[in-house]
Amino acid sequence: MNEKKIEKRWIVAFVITAIVAVTGLFWEHKTINGSNADFNATDTISYADVAWLLTAACLVLLMTPGLSFFYGGMVGKKNVISTMLKSFICLGVISILWVAVGFSLSFGDPIGPTINGVHYGIIGNPADFAFFDYVDQHPHSAMASTIPFVLFALFQMKFAVITPALITGALAERIRFISFLLFICLFSIFIYAPLCHMVWHPDGLLGAYFGVKDFAGGTVVHMSAGFAALAGVMVLGKRKNLEHIPTNIPFVLLGTGLLWFGWFGFNAGSALAANSTAAMAFATTTIASASAMLTWAFFDRINGRKVSALGCCIGAVVGLVAITPAAGFVSIPKSIFFGFIAAIVSNLMVNWKRLKRIDDTLDVFACHGVGGIMGMILTAIFAEVEGGSLLYGGWEVFGHHMMALILVAAFSFFGALLLYKITNLFIPLRVSEESEAMGLDMSQHNESIGL
Amino acid sequence: MNEKKIEKRWIVAFVITAIVAVTGLFWEHKTINGSNADFNATDTISYADVAWLLTAACLVLLMTPGLSFFYGGMVGKKNVISTMLKSFICLGVISILWVAVGFSLSFGDPIGPTINGVHYGIIGNPADFAFFDYVDQHPHSAMASTIPFVLFALFQMKFAVITPALITGALAERIRFISFLLFICLFSIFIYAPLCHMVWHPDGLLGAYFGVKDFAGGTVVHMSAGFAALAGVMVLGKRKNLEHIPTNIPFVLLGTGLLWFGWFGFNAGSALAANSTAAMAFATTTIASASAMLTWAFFDRINGRKVSALGCCIGAVVGLVAITPAAGFVSIPKSIFFGFIAAIVSNLMVNWKRLKRIDDTLDVFACHGVGGIMGMILTAIFAEVEGGSLLYGGWEVFGHHMMALILVAAFSFFGALLLYKITNLFIPLRVSEESEAMGLDMSQHNESIGL
Amino acid sequence: MNEKKIEKRWIVAFVITAIVAVTGLFWEHKTINGSNADFNATDTISYADVAWLLTAACLVLLMTPGLSFFYGGMVGKKNVISTMLKSFICLGVISILWVAVGFSLSFGDPIGPTINGVHYGIIGNPADFAFFDYVDQHPHSAMASTIPFVLFALFQMKFAVITPALITGALAERIRFISFLLFICLFSIFIYAPLCHMVWHPDGLLGAYFGVKDFAGGTVVHMSAGFAALAGVMVLGKRKNLEHIPTNIPFVLLGTGLLWFGWFGFNAGSALAANSTAAMAFATTTIASASAMLTWAFFDRINGRKVSALGCCIGAVVGLVAITPAAGFVSIPKSIFFGFIAAIVSNLMVNWKRLKRIDDTLDVFACHGVGGIMGMILTAIFAEVEGGSLLYGGWEVFGHHMMALILVAAFSFFGALLLYKITNLFIPLRVSEESEAMGLDMSQHNESIGL
Repeated sequence: MNEKKIEKRWIVAFVITAIVAVTGLFWEHKTINGSNADFNATDTISYADVAWLLTAACLVLLMTPGLSFFYGGMVGKKNVISTMLKSFICLGVISILWVAVGFSLSFGDPIGPTINGVHYGIIGNPADFAFFDYVDQHPHSAMASTIPFVLFALFQMKFAVITPALITGALAERIRFISFLLFICLFSIFIYAPLCHMVWHPDGLLGAYFGVKDFAGGTVVHMSAGFAALAGVMVLGKRKNLEHIPTNIPFVLLGTGLLWFGWFGFNAGSALAANSTAAMAFATTTIASASAMLTWAFFDRINGRKVSALGCCIGAVVGLVAITPAAGFVSIPKSIFFGFIAAIVSNLMVNWKRLKRIDDTLDVFACHGVGGIMGMILTAIFAEVEGGSLLYGGWEVFGHHMMALILVAAFSFFGALLLYKITNLFIPLRVSEESEAMGLDMSQHNESIGL
Repeated sequence: MNEKKIEKRWIVAFVITAIVAVTGLFWEHKTINGSNADFNATDTISYADVAWLLTAACLVLLMTPGLSFFYGGMVGKKNVISTMLKSFICLGVISILWVAVGFSLSFGDPIGPTINGVHYGIIGNPADFAFFDYVDQHPHSAMASTIPFVLFALFQMKFAVITPALITGALAERIRFISFLLFICLFSIFIYAPLCHMVWHPDGLLGAYFGVKDFAGGTVVHMSAGFAALAGVMVLGKRKNLEHIPTNIPFVLLGTGLLWFGWFGFNAGSALAANSTAAMAFATTTIASASAMLTWAFFDRINGRKVSALGCCIGAVVGLVAITPAAGFVSIPKSIFFGFIAAIVSNLMVNWKRLKRIDDTLDVFACHGVGGIMGMILTAIFAEVEGGSLLYGGWEVFGHHMMALILVAAFSFFGALLLYKITNLFIPLRVSEESEAMGLDMSQHNESIGL
Repeated sequence: MNEKKIEKRWIVAFVITAIVAVTGLFWEHKTINGSNADFNATDTISYADVAWLLTAACLVLLMTPGLSFFYGGMVGKKNVISTMLKSFICLGVISILWVAVGFSLSFGDPIGPTINGVHYGIIGNPADFAFFDYVDQHPHSAMASTIPFVLFALFQMKFAVITPALITGALAERIRFISFLLFICLFSIFIYAPLCHMVWHPDGLLGAYFGVKDFAGGTVVHMSAGFAALAGVMVLGKRKNLEHIPTNIPFVLLGTGLLWFGWFGFNAGSALAANSTAAMAFATTTIASASAMLTWAFFDRINGRKVSALGCCIGAVVGLVAITPAAGFVSIPKSIFFGFIAAIVSNLMVNWKRLKRIDDTLDVFACHGVGGIMGMILTAIFAEVEGGSLLYGGWEVFGHHMMALILVAAFSFFGALLLYKITNLFIPLRVSEESEAMGLDMSQHNESIGL
């Protein structure tokens, strides 16, 4: 496809934005009038919960810039800005998509099969909360009964934003910017939204039928991103220049600091209240991360590598990933073990030659995919919820979880594979060889970090 | 003026600081004793509101360092530190000024004309809350009835701090540091405080008489800074070297991330409570920003420029500026349009040759001035408050708003012009030619980013 | 000691981590069952306080990455990453140590002498809260009666984390990484925990017997770190290359911004509630910092140095340090004076030739040690607590404070001296001459900032 045609795609992008904006202007915004079975009256709002969830939503927002530094510092010097921008732009694209249709697809009335007389959702009805209709000050009685529904929708928005941003690390240094934009829209609609619905909607298939426990998004966020990253790497192929010299390690440290900080919003916020569960989730989160950071550093060292800042950062993030699905479900001492074992497994994966060969640039699969899997398995073993895990309900429960794990992995991987192929039909996924050699900063954005 | 004389100005600066500090030491700090008509008893405090406002005040503080990175990354490499420091130092200068006199001028008893038998304020009585007298744990019954007055005063302090910091981008690479310090003191006292009083004090002329709606500071903060920037550029003149190569785009991304994060404190905090209004303001804020970011990027592209990280960042900030006055007043779908239209107008202004010619170094007027104007106009059209906007009260209301807009613009512009001239009498505003050529980092601060 | 032997130390480090992790896995985690005299029922929880303390704990966490940038930007270009990592790794090491034993040592049942029939604690019983036993949703009736005890333990954890991180600045560019890890474990157990217990446990010797007032850690955190830094410098000796060119001043600005932001969690969070005391502490904190920033800048200038970004940053931090012990105890106007006087004294210390000669690389003693002393003295004079300071109780009270000051200084200094010597027995504290010449980034971590 020649440059002329690609140029036209940008016009389409602008026109779509304009249409959405004008639609927003003339939209007859529907709010809850009088009593509504699904929504509580506003006097059920707990203002302390509002205070914490406002804060938590801020914190989760900051994770996306944090991620941009985490990844941006790791790539080569000709691709720093383009890598950062791909995280950043998700704040733009996915936020708008979420208002228009994403939130409805994730939390609208369940559409899906009826099993043994019970209706389970695979995806939400896209018309339910289009342009945030009915998303206002009234708390939803089933999803978040003590905070305005709009606050729940905002908090969830930040999760939807960061998930595609996580994928960017795998595709760095070779994916075309506009193709990436198209792909994340498709990913968000066809992979993220159904997973989110199936796990977190009260009637979702994975949560309600399979009994999957996912406190803060190990499955929905990290496994989905990890497997989509793996699929992307396979479709895109290796970089021409496999050199890997991180440009700015302080940026990685900054990114890690912001991610860790933001993750408290992510995990402790997922209690959806300023209560003891939030505090416990906060504790397990920071401790798993601390444990994984140390484990990674020491494990590197006893394997003949030096203790590195990069390793400490990756370790900390792997710990955060692994504890995410379990954060509110396990006791504090166990979280040390979560971090320990997840760090060792991901460290082995990162250094596994076979995986190295496919060139997942920044090890997204080894960290988020595998970290997510580890978290899901460990949660399925240890979650201290009656009937919720192997130790609190037996093998059958555990079997259901493992089935769900395979379903999620396959759905994310093959789904993403298909969406990359579709994207590729409209706009080539990979930049030209010259553009790649020049670096994406210059070739895609006409910018440089000036070194 | 020779260097010897300028040297003496610094001694004056130190002496003033010392006098203020010693005054603080011996100040007979007055607190509310017994009942006071203006203040509630402390049992009216809502602790959830306190929790959120403490957080919001933290967030707004972080905007100033955020801004220093937003601007610092954009300037040339010989002026990065000096540009950043000019934002940063506002945290020092304006905070102290605010305690001593700024808060009183902004929120003290109204001094001003009586129109039709009603008393309207143009500025507050400077003696009312000097050195934070009476600013303690009691909530003010009219201004913020559920949080300690000291918390309100702190939250407002951060707004006063960031406003002069916004101006710095326009004057970068050529303004003398000590002149800048003097100017921001004058600006804060003679422009910011009256505007703040007129818009936000319950009896303020613009708010109470003209009916101006400004949820979180579109007028007070962004228009005033934008027009003061424009005036500054005119007084200072163009840089000798008009080259414009942004030194560190990742810094701009970091700054934008911190600004976006902090803006939730700014806008959602302006509800002065952890309630549904805060959540709605949070929503419109993030969505307007997302929309403006995308619009700016795509609009750049269809006009033959590349999609750039810089453009995305500026777009996001313009969206934040434009929604600020309306954040708690409009429905969520409309906020998409706010971001869209503000981004297009500001983008056109930034690329308008005539404006380029005057050398507003970092386009402060085009972004904050014009963004503020757009926000004020859009608010005056769409604010969903009975009798508060064109669509909810008719043309007369709108006419009042437009008159106010012109008044604010003229007051900020000509007021600032005068204050620059006055500053110039005491200390030359512009550095010497040699200093400019050397770069302000080295010539003013003896520091360099070492590239 | 040869490299082979040092290698083995790393294996020990890994094995200890593994043992702790596996212990965590099999730990029979004890929770409060039924009624317990020390703990309240959960219905005494104030959820607004939970919301604010969750936030405050997040903020204090961010201070450690903030500190890593504050210090990292100041060192030479061959030691940036190693300096940053030494702050960062405290998040890993101290968090785990805190769960296992640190929190018990700090807040467990007091072990210590009986004076006049009253039992005073010098250190806590390490078995009391081992692996966070009994640290759950129930509020502790004496230590933090309105928030879950786990949240109190987390908030305190962040203080324990940052204290050894503060020391790193003094030892930069020459301390061996693994020796540092061992030292901070010893420091945390034998210096931090007893001090924390003696000052903040309700029966602690310094707080209960000497009547020491330390609102947020001037003694516990800053004096202890400052004196341990001084001892470290004496043990380690000077750097070979005394050159001192700060590599990245924008990093210092970033670090200062994050520290200032996080310090609100530190000081206002120390009210342990979202109340007026928190708001007052917030106010004194930001104002002392603003005042010290200006004072440092102007004082530099009138002493023939230029106003520098570095100076403004250091000044701001010194102000934060000095107000810390007094934050909730003094009136707002006085906080201006706190910042002013602390800045002048620390500035004189930083520029005092004799202190320069010992090569405290980043002036940790002059800033944190002296800042902490100043804060403690000023608090002992001005704290507005009946019977708590010179002005509110007389000379006897003040005398007690001064005795305590000397005790704390001596304990921290000589204690740390001993712990450095012990560390040195196991692993040499200082890197080899070649490693130092090469820079610690490369020699210890095989990483570089690539300039």
